Amino acid sequence: MKKWEENIRKVTPYVPGEQPKRRDVVKLNTNENPYPPSPRVAKALRQISTESMRKYPDPEARMLVEAIAEMETSPRSGSAAERGCLSEDAACGTAAMENLTPEQIFVGVGSDDVLAMIFLTFFNSEKPVLFPDITYSFYDVWADMLRIPYERQPLNEAFEIVGRDYYKENGGVIFPNPNAPTGALLGLDVIEDIIRHNQDVIVVVDEAYIDFGGVSCVGLLEKYDNLIVVKTFSKSRSMAGMRIGYAVAGKELIGYLNDVKYSFNSYTMNQTAILLGTAAARDNEYFEETRRKIIATREKAKLELAKLGFSFQDSQANFLFVTHKSVPAAELFAALKEEGIYVRYFDRPRIDNYLRITIGTDEEMERLYAFLRTYPGIR
Amino acid sequence: MKKWEENIRKVTPYVPGEQPKRRDVVKLNTNENPYPPSPRVAKALRQISTESMRKYPDPEARMLVEAIAEMETSPRSGSAAERGCLSEDAACGTAAMENLTPEQIFVGVGSDDVLAMIFLTFFNSEKPVLFPDITYSFYDVWADMLRIPYERQPLNEAFEIVGRDYYKENGGVIFPNPNAPTGALLGLDVIEDIIRHNQDVIVVVDEAYIDFGGVSCVGLLEKYDNLIVVKTFSKSRSMAGMRIGYAVAGKELIGYLNDVKYSFNSYTMNQTAILLGTAAARDNEYFEETRRKIIATREKAKLELAKLGFSFQDSQANFLFVTHKSVPAAELFAALKEEGIYVRYFDRPRIDNYLRITIGTDEEMERLYAFLRTYPGIR
Repeated sequence: MKKWEENIRKVTPYVPGEQPKRRDVVKLNTNENPYPPSPRVAKALRQISTESMRKYPDPEARMLVEAIAEMETSPRSGSAAERGCLSEDAACGTAAMENLTPEQIFVGVGSDDVLAMIFLTFFNSEKPVLFPDITYSFYDVWADMLRIPYERQPLNEAFEIVGRDYYKENGGVIFPNPNAPTGALLGLDVIEDIIRHNQDVIVVVDEAYIDFGGVSCVGLLEKYDNLIVVKTFSKSRSMAGMRIGYAVAGKELIGYLNDVKYSFNSYTMNQTAILLGTAAARDNEYFEETRRKIIATREKAKLELAKLGFSFQDSQANFLFVTHKSVPAAELFAALKEEGIYVRYFDRPRIDNYLRITIGTDEEMERLYAFLRTYPGIR
Repeated sequence: MKKWEENIRKVTPYVPGEQPKRRDVVKLNTNENPYPPSPRVAKALRQISTESMRKYPDPEARMLVEAIAEMETSPRSGSAAERGCLSEDAACGTAAMENLTPEQIFVGVGSDDVLAMIFLTFFNSEKPVLFPDITYSFYDVWADMLRIPYERQPLNEAFEIVGRDYYKENGGVIFPNPNAPTGALLGLDVIEDIIRHNQDVIVVVDEAYIDFGGVSCVGLLEKYDNLIVVKTFSKSRSMAGMRIGYAVAGKELIGYLNDVKYSFNSYTMNQTAILLGTAAARDNEYFEETRRKIIATREKAKLELAKLGFSFQDSQANFLFVTHKSVPAAELFAALKEEGIYVRYFDRPRIDNYLRITIGTDEEMERLYAFLRTYPGIR
């Protein structure tokens, strides 16, 4: 070993889902939106001039931050049912904040960048950060990399987050809602209970999938100044390729987050991300339409997959986390891949007999059902 | 103070140069290229489809990485003089590596992202990292944020890096070449001496400005496996707005860097950055042409500013770091700004009577000279 190796930070990195080069693949493995971004994004792209690319982008990405603040405050039209929400709660899918200012928004290169900055900025205690044992698999990667102590709280047998597990002393709390990869949604009452029991630390609710049927807890910001809500353009806004994520929180927390960001990289959002993200944020109608389609396809998928002998939690995300009564997940994963249908399989304790299936278009889902119907042992 | 404030990482962030909203400004304050990106970038932009933006980008940014590897190995045409180099060294502006592979390239969101990842990955010693006292002002910001010990080595009276200051025990070495904000270029012999005396640690040479007349030390990678060379598309490739930086090093170091990057954010380069960066990397001819123009304008600026009573080091970058024999820099900075001519002023020890002036187009520089000629006390 060379002497310089001693000072290298050696980590086990997160392994992202495969991005196959094959064109004919039914890609249900990385929770991407099956629909393209809003037509306004295409229009905005046509208006971009490369002339200005010689200059640095606006370090504050002000245009995008303002569009997000506006998007988060504009009420959604229609009743809960019309908006495709299963919950009767009239607030489903709405932003409950009345007066969100741009100073309450932090943008980053996807919600991963936002979350990594949050770990770096706020999780500096000797006490462990708490998160579920089955959850977004980046949390422990960030904690390990940044040498942050953490403690996993096991989901119950039904794969649900148990609120009271988070009432103990800790250095911070983070969980996704809906949880990943289960898709299970926590009620706002449970979330508020967790925050109420943790007012000495920062509580982060990662709402990457909230737009597919859940109620955002952004409204709780009016009551709790230690809450950070993280969202993304990668799922419900069909913009995974442009890497845009954001945090909503009190002005004070966003200020600290920006200080750390400006100590890392002053200009994280490039000009195209700012311009195209702004266009996407402004098309609420298209957002509602595609969101509704995905929710409808997911509800149909629940029926189809149940008929085929799969069981799963009642996901409110754009994916289902399924297990089959007789065919092992690992076997099915390989067979599907062979067929050109990519889903996600995590070879980890408790979930190694599950597949995470992203909700695609109706046509893509039909290809999945057709293959499953003929697969030996499925019925 | 709230209890949750105790665990917040509080930092003094880097303050980037101003991005004025006024349109008529002569912007010579952030070392941007005065020429737009290659026409191939505009062409590539027209070919981008927003359809694919629903999908995640290639986490390896393979297309861009390959284009950079190729760009770094392709020899530059013409003699040193023809290429606008002042040095007689035939290697001026050339890449001396014969067989650079894509596995030797790491890309990031501007060279700031690349450098921050390098600090995080390689500077984990108890011993101080060494860098000049007058240098890129982000180095101490990163070290402070990541709690890395460091020790500044003073430039000599002529504002030059003194090689032997870096021969002591340390946890790593980093310096820009040409240095910022002085523009002074170190010879390859001095750089090799520094590396030779530091084979137990990682040595980083930050070549953001190397294309404006210097000789890249990439060729030294054939001899030293502890060297990392960092470059950017922001200056000589006119792409500051797209945030593309890269590191060139041995496969092993690039591997460690990628592991940390994948532990932070799997997908840092968005689709437009990958596609437009690739187009820019492939247009060597345009690169040579604009580079040559900037070098010519800089050499003219040296004559003009000397005539007006300024003194400066013999910069090989796209800026001059000047001081005037009778007018204080702070006063001139304010007067220039009032006139709509933005330059950079650093209110710091040793350099608080200097201005950093980016080389613009000939027309922009003429506006600067015209104003200076009439300024009271200049002549």
